[in-house]
Amino acid sequence: MGADRGGLSPARIETLVDGVFAIAMTILVLELHAPEPAPALDLGASLVRLWPKVASYAVSFVILGTLWIGHHYQFHYIRRSNRALLWINLIFLLFVSFLPFATALVGSFPRDRVAVLVYGGTLMGAGSCLAAQWGYASWRGRLLGPEASAAVVRALRARVLAGTVVYGVALGTAAFLPGVALVIFAVMPVLYFFPSGIDRHVRGEGG
Amino acid sequence: MGADRGGLSPARIETLVDGVFAIAMTILVLELHAPEPAPALDLGASLVRLWPKVASYAVSFVILGTLWIGHHYQFHYIRRSNRALLWINLIFLLFVSFLPFATALVGSFPRDRVAVLVYGGTLMGAGSCLAAQWGYASWRGRLLGPEASAAVVRALRARVLAGTVVYGVALGTAAFLPGVALVIFAVMPVLYFFPSGIDRHVRGEGG
Amino acid sequence: MGADRGGLSPARIETLVDGVFAIAMTILVLELHAPEPAPALDLGASLVRLWPKVASYAVSFVILGTLWIGHHYQFHYIRRSNRALLWINLIFLLFVSFLPFATALVGSFPRDRVAVLVYGGTLMGAGSCLAAQWGYASWRGRLLGPEASAAVVRALRARVLAGTVVYGVALGTAAFLPGVALVIFAVMPVLYFFPSGIDRHVRGEGG
Amino acid sequence: MGADRGGLSPARIETLVDGVFAIAMTILVLELHAPEPAPALDLGASLVRLWPKVASYAVSFVILGTLWIGHHYQFHYIRRSNRALLWINLIFLLFVSFLPFATALVGSFPRDRVAVLVYGGTLMGAGSCLAAQWGYASWRGRLLGPEASAAVVRALRARVLAGTVVYGVALGTAAFLPGVALVIFAVMPVLYFFPSGIDRHVRGEGG
Repeated sequence: MGADRGGLSPARIETLVDGVFAIAMTILVLELHAPEPAPALDLGASLVRLWPKVASYAVSFVILGTLWIGHHYQFHYIRRSNRALLWINLIFLLFVSFLPFATALVGSFPRDRVAVLVYGGTLMGAGSCLAAQWGYASWRGRLLGPEASAAVVRALRARVLAGTVVYGVALGTAAFLPGVALVIFAVMPVLYFFPSGIDRHVRGEGG
Repeated sequence: MGADRGGLSPARIETLVDGVFAIAMTILVLELHAPEPAPALDLGASLVRLWPKVASYAVSFVILGTLWIGHHYQFHYIRRSNRALLWINLIFLLFVSFLPFATALVGSFPRDRVAVLVYGGTLMGAGSCLAAQWGYASWRGRLLGPEASAAVVRALRARVLAGTVVYGVALGTAAFLPGVALVIFAVMPVLYFFPSGIDRHVRGEGG
Repeated sequence: MGADRGGLSPARIETLVDGVFAIAMTILVLELHAPEPAPALDLGASLVRLWPKVASYAVSFVILGTLWIGHHYQFHYIRRSNRALLWINLIFLLFVSFLPFATALVGSFPRDRVAVLVYGGTLMGAGSCLAAQWGYASWRGRLLGPEASAAVVRALRARVLAGTVVYGVALGTAAFLPGVALVIFAVMPVLYFFPSGIDRHVRGEGG
Repeated sequence: MGADRGGLSPARIETLVDGVFAIAMTILVLELHAPEPAPALDLGASLVRLWPKVASYAVSFVILGTLWIGHHYQFHYIRRSNRALLWINLIFLLFVSFLPFATALVGSFPRDRVAVLVYGGTLMGAGSCLAAQWGYASWRGRLLGPEASAAVVRALRARVLAGTVVYGVALGTAAFLPGVALVIFAVMPVLYFFPSGIDRHVRGEGG
């Protein structure tokens, strides 16, 4: 409630975003169906046949995690909200909430170019919203708090742009080599394991 | 916890509202089903045939977003809660949680008058609750904080009434021209892109 | 984080409870299925045939609302948490999360004694947890804050016991007259429309 | 927002975790399907035949509760966040969100070794993440607040390791005696009913 220097508090955007992420991450599993009991069923073999769906579930879960982490870092510095920020977040969430469907497509049709393009396009859309959000919020420090130094702004911009570029490359690849694109999507979150420039800034703040 | 000037804190209402919105927005996508794999399936063509469902998903998502934004602006000024406000919010959420079903109806029967009437009636109900909430909370400043000047009260009232009137017009149209009503529902959120009087007030608060 | 006078903060219990309520209230609607498009389908007539499911959806939604309001009022005064309170809330949420299934049963078998008994038993269980929570938390003021006067403790106890008694009566009735029991369940939330003793206390706190 | 001594605030991790737990606990019930109405249906007998699914629902719900309580106690002391903590929590949530599927497997195939191994492996994974989180956060007090004395660190470590060991034993048992493993999983939460060393510390903090 209230706000630092006028404007709407960003706290409720965080609540809505966290809610949509929590739900999207959790309903991914609804695409996995236990096989029906049958006399000669070999459950182990049935589960092995599920592996493309299990893999697409795990990959999408972790990708959603990286998008959430990206949003988390940006909102660490965003202190005010306005109508434009609300809309950027709504469009962002539209892509996030679409991902369970795109995941189901890829899980059912892992070699189909159309499925991979829909999947990559959804991720590209979500990543672009994060890039747009940081560009908008950091433009002349519009919505940021005082800890957001020029170095912080640059570090987060580099990070979100790098992500968007990789999604773009994977999306372009999907048009020709959908299998390779899937590998890029699956490997990409590993990049987010490692701390980068921004983590130094965040760590040093209390200093 | 606690409250500014007696009464229940409105914070938990916000949590419940944000939760129901997050879930309603995210489970809309459960209406989209990936086609079953089949030998001669053309996935692209199958997805194109899904377009009424995809469109109704996207439109409902964005409309839910505008309702959430409306609630967000009102609660920016509402500082106290009471039993009446709890019930207004429960009835509001009853309509919000019904929207995924109404969306499925319209996605399956986009030209059926009954489907469009159910859809429009649900939106009309949700919008009316927002109007009732602002009327109730702002009556003699009953539940508002001190920043809610007479100009703020008027600006938010104008906004919520305008929305309710447009929903009413669309609902009336649905009885005769369901297709036109759908276009109104789809176009209406665009109006919320643009800042209005209330945004000036919110922006200026930090003074 | 932290706590007033030692103990775990109750804030995260509220978050979990609000989350489970938001989800249970919203997934009730998943029991309503849009009819499949068919050449001679009369959509209006199909929807009318859905009425027992729509009614049980709306009644369960509102009953969940009254349980949430009851929890909300109790946590207005509960300031500390401990392992026992965590477990009371988990058992409470077990009943709350079961309600969508019980609602589906009653929606499909509105005249079946077994369905109504399961439904009533679920509500009885949830109501008893609320009663147990208040009894446990208010015993010698164990977990309450200083605003919880003896009059507040009595008023909330009267309220939660009244609710449990009505659920018990309805449950007993269900064994013989399931239809009458359903009417009691549907009418009961109306009682929560009206302010009671506790509302005077809450309103007066800011004094 | 902000943080005690530099670093990201852990508050949003709590929000995401609470959201995923709330959803996972609530969608467990989606595995229970009301029987289809049929002329000679005996609803009571149908429900009795559902008992393995009802039992696995209730057990999983309560186990999720104990995992959530474990997380809750750890975050009572964790005051800072960093990239590693974010990732530990994402992997933790990956197991948590998988549990509804594992529960459906066990509910459909309660005597199948593969089903019980998948179920036990999921719990083992979630428990190991909690153990890793406490080890990481408490190493030289890295992410803890000042109330986390050496005795607190030891008490919570003993607790989380005990849980992991029991899950490991049950998992090993599942390979030979799946039925016995299920009994261990069902009985284990009872251990969490009783206060332990950590509760004394938490209670005494207000001192």
